[in-house]
Amino acid sequence: MQNQLSVIPLTREIFEPFGDVIEVSEAAETFSINDGYATRYHDLATIEIYGSGGRPLINIFRGRSRPLPLKIHMMERHPLGSQAFVPLHRNPFVIVVAPEGEFAGPDSLSAFITNGNQGVNYRRNIWHFPLLVLGDTSQDFLIIDRGGEGDNCEEHYFDKDSVCILKL
Amino acid sequence: MQNQLSVIPLTREIFEPFGDVIEVSEAAETFSINDGYATRYHDLATIEIYGSGGRPLINIFRGRSRPLPLKIHMMERHPLGSQAFVPLHRNPFVIVVAPEGEFAGPDSLSAFITNGNQGVNYRRNIWHFPLLVLGDTSQDFLIIDRGGEGDNCEEHYFDKDSVCILKL
Repeated sequence: MQNQLSVIPLTREIFEPFGDVIEVSEAAETFSINDGYATRYHDLATIEIYGSGGRPLINIFRGRSRPLPLKIHMMERHPLGSQAFVPLHRNPFVIVVAPEGEFAGPDSLSAFITNGNQGVNYRRNIWHFPLLVLGDTSQDFLIIDRGGEGDNCEEHYFDKDSVCILKL
Repeated sequence: MQNQLSVIPLTREIFEPFGDVIEVSEAAETFSINDGYATRYHDLATIEIYGSGGRPLINIFRGRSRPLPLKIHMMERHPLGSQAFVPLHRNPFVIVVAPEGEFAGPDSLSAFITNGNQGVNYRRNIWHFPLLVLGDTSQDFLIIDRGGEGDNCEEHYFDKDSVCILKL
């Protein structure tokens, strides 16, 4: 029988070991700005930039859906910086993470689904599956990550018996 | 008669003196990533962080519309860093900017409207009016700007004869 992985709703509290949830939240420090015409939800994620010549980048990822059922067959991590994914739309997306350190196998995976108004910021070295969009259309995300010299991506491919099926 | 300011469509080329347009564009460096399930539009804006203890921040601004007609009665600038505004929706918004240096009066203003799929990044010291959303509902934007000690906001208020009315 294949490994199955249940997907649960994303919250700030449950995601804390892996990074930040980027959302309008009462938990955020807020300021009224612009003569009252805007509210600033302040400092929602920690951008980490390590290594020689590193600098923060702003990018857009245009993601396409993978075949169903969704299979988790590898994980990746970025040893030199954090990576934030903020949807430029209101569609939920799926996040699969595992703690930092040596990858501890499929039992160490956690899977979350956003509520459509949430982005995430993976802390440096947190294992994660690449972008998982739902639905038939391509979807854009703003990505804030680290640029500059150095190898900032490590991949870990599972053996066949460790592949997980996501239960949405 | 009051000063009037026409609003024209935003393009990367026309905005170049003021900063970056953050959008999916053929002009961007692109990579196919994630086994072909995503396209990376790479390094779309230059994040500038100056001054002691400065660091990049990720924030959300929730903007509310101002009374019509829109009046430009002041401008602000950030001497210690850039500031990016990326809409978390598909609604156009309006941008009013002026070149860096001493503010040169209402004749130095330029006004642009986005196509709904564009964000902007104001370069350090570029004069700009605060967030201008259109429509009746509040709208969220992801903001990447500079945090840390130091005074990073200068405001210039116009005399009464210099106030501009935006022609949408």
